[in-house]
Amino acid sequence: MPSLHARTRLSAESIFSRMSRLAAQRGAVNLGQGFPSTPPPAFLLEAARRAVGTVDQYSPPIGLPALREAVAQDLEVQPEQVVITCGATEAMFALAQTLYGPNPGGQPDELIAFEPVFDIYLPQTVMVGATFVGVPLNLSAEGWRLDIDALCRAVTPRTKALIVNSPFNPTGSVFTRAELQAIADLAREHDFWLISDEVYDELYYDVRPVSLRTLAPERTFTVGSAGKRLDATGWRVGWIVTPEGAAPEVAGLHQWTTFCAPAPLQAAVAEALGIARTSGFYDGLRRSYLKRMQLLAAGLRDLGAEVFTPQGTYFLTARLPGVDAERLVTEGGVAVIPLEAFYRTQPAPPEMLRLAFCKSEAEIEEALRRLKGFLSR
Amino acid sequence: MPSLHARTRLSAESIFSRMSRLAAQRGAVNLGQGFPSTPPPAFLLEAARRAVGTVDQYSPPIGLPALREAVAQDLEVQPEQVVITCGATEAMFALAQTLYGPNPGGQPDELIAFEPVFDIYLPQTVMVGATFVGVPLNLSAEGWRLDIDALCRAVTPRTKALIVNSPFNPTGSVFTRAELQAIADLAREHDFWLISDEVYDELYYDVRPVSLRTLAPERTFTVGSAGKRLDATGWRVGWIVTPEGAAPEVAGLHQWTTFCAPAPLQAAVAEALGIARTSGFYDGLRRSYLKRMQLLAAGLRDLGAEVFTPQGTYFLTARLPGVDAERLVTEGGVAVIPLEAFYRTQPAPPEMLRLAFCKSEAEIEEALRRLKGFLSR
Repeated sequence: MPSLHARTRLSAESIFSRMSRLAAQRGAVNLGQGFPSTPPPAFLLEAARRAVGTVDQYSPPIGLPALREAVAQDLEVQPEQVVITCGATEAMFALAQTLYGPNPGGQPDELIAFEPVFDIYLPQTVMVGATFVGVPLNLSAEGWRLDIDALCRAVTPRTKALIVNSPFNPTGSVFTRAELQAIADLAREHDFWLISDEVYDELYYDVRPVSLRTLAPERTFTVGSAGKRLDATGWRVGWIVTPEGAAPEVAGLHQWTTFCAPAPLQAAVAEALGIARTSGFYDGLRRSYLKRMQLLAAGLRDLGAEVFTPQGTYFLTARLPGVDAERLVTEGGVAVIPLEAFYRTQPAPPEMLRLAFCKSEAEIEEALRRLKGFLSR
Repeated sequence: MPSLHARTRLSAESIFSRMSRLAAQRGAVNLGQGFPSTPPPAFLLEAARRAVGTVDQYSPPIGLPALREAVAQDLEVQPEQVVITCGATEAMFALAQTLYGPNPGGQPDELIAFEPVFDIYLPQTVMVGATFVGVPLNLSAEGWRLDIDALCRAVTPRTKALIVNSPFNPTGSVFTRAELQAIADLAREHDFWLISDEVYDELYYDVRPVSLRTLAPERTFTVGSAGKRLDATGWRVGWIVTPEGAAPEVAGLHQWTTFCAPAPLQAAVAEALGIARTSGFYDGLRRSYLKRMQLLAAGLRDLGAEVFTPQGTYFLTARLPGVDAERLVTEGGVAVIPLEAFYRTQPAPPEMLRLAFCKSEAEIEEALRRLKGFLSR
């Protein structure tokens, strides 16, 4: 047989898929992969049941008009700026395709992202032929913070874009307005694009996160996710808000990767976004996740962990000596993600774990019980 | 602002999207883009209404186990060979990523496809950094046939894969067993991969199409589509049948472009595939499309067209002098696709159109009336 292309070196199963698979095989409580164990809200499900049978054929690649309108209204932008994608993963891939890659006769573009880094950013960068540059966040007793000096040092004439992720997966930290302003200033000074992955924009437990777009609208592409907002991670409906005039360019490449997002689910999300906003759904979601976060954090502290309280997302990071994640899932019956899985170019801080609290209180309590047993062996 | 990447030269709106947009704006009958005007079957819709609310979170990137099983049973392969994707478009893109691209320090891989060529093959090839090579089909009074000599001449030491599309979009032709055997022999002799785009595998009007996989299972990747089989083009559920052992490699790249296909729609298709097979649904579909094809073909012949009767798909090609597709949609109220849109490296035969007959009989009759009026002006 001929060989497969060299980029299949990126084909390894992700740590999330691996941990979910092991959790299912071993009957472990899954605090690894970030999907909720509660169903999506009834208003979303009802909208989907109505959409199926009426909106079943191709949508325009750029998205169903009703969903582009709904996203625009929710985020206070123009519908013409919105592109609908097959989830936020494809949104990030479409932006990688649009913004960076190889340069015939020259060096490839460079993409900067912060480490610990969400796992898709590096392989997507490599797949489009650009170079990934990692910049570490600082970790102290105050939590995870931007290291602006390290970021400045990483910028070169080849820097084409920076991915900012706030609220930040895997740490749950939220960049302050001052941090985002420093990033926006740097992007203007060195003229690079900003990709703002804001899929957890409605999941915050302190102040409402600032959207980077409001500080640098001319160069910021914002990515959002119906799956993360509406507890429906398997629906594959995401969006991009582009700077003015850039939406057709992004949609024009997205049409060759997936053509369009699932049409009936787009229609359902179009209906649900307004209801979620006006009904207080996100407030309820935040209250519910905050309670579960506090339950998990307190339980971990009781077990001797140093917990870094998240300001957003449904993840927290904790230092818990003596826990090997592979052994924990197979012998202890709890799936978590070792933080070192999020470090690709920098050394990882030792003994750190990412735990998801988008699970039921009963699951979290059971995970804590099992963890206690595992640690006491 | 920094520049967008050079690959955005591929961002132009496709001819299908353009014609559908113009058709909607002008109230034209749309015989352009290939989506049916009838809804999907009730058994599919009912399955989707049940799946929503129960299968809402991420599936494994490789696909829901139930759908991999259902596809495997339908196509008589092993579930381990099946990868589920966000529609056949993403299936083709995942294969492009897996099989060809640039070679550091050397020339890029070459991908061969037949012309007239379905519009996604060329931009997908360019996006992954490989070189597109077009080989013309022969057109005679007997219809569209393989030119094996032209194919042999196009093969080089850099040929990495050949896309075969049977039933063939845009011509509706079906390759004979002898033609496919010649292709399989050539692929073995020169050791390249075969990508068999069989999204219209159940839409045939003569003999059942031979699947290339049965002639060269060790090197053939087969692509299929729930959207095309079940009249639900907007659902974005497609699949790939890989040679043994290759599925994890394909899924491992697909996980970075979309992560997984829409989970509730996967669950619905898993249930529907078996029902479609055992209930005679495909027989009914073929009868219904055959009737509409005959209606369109007879009407076009009455207008003086030379019609090339398709053996499959829901498209036919016809030579109809004096019809400019742009003028027809804006002034005549009928959207069709000029066949020259499917030629990228070869000269197009003149005055040819592709017309879709996956529309209601009333729409086809109205289109013929309007076409008659347009021609008589």
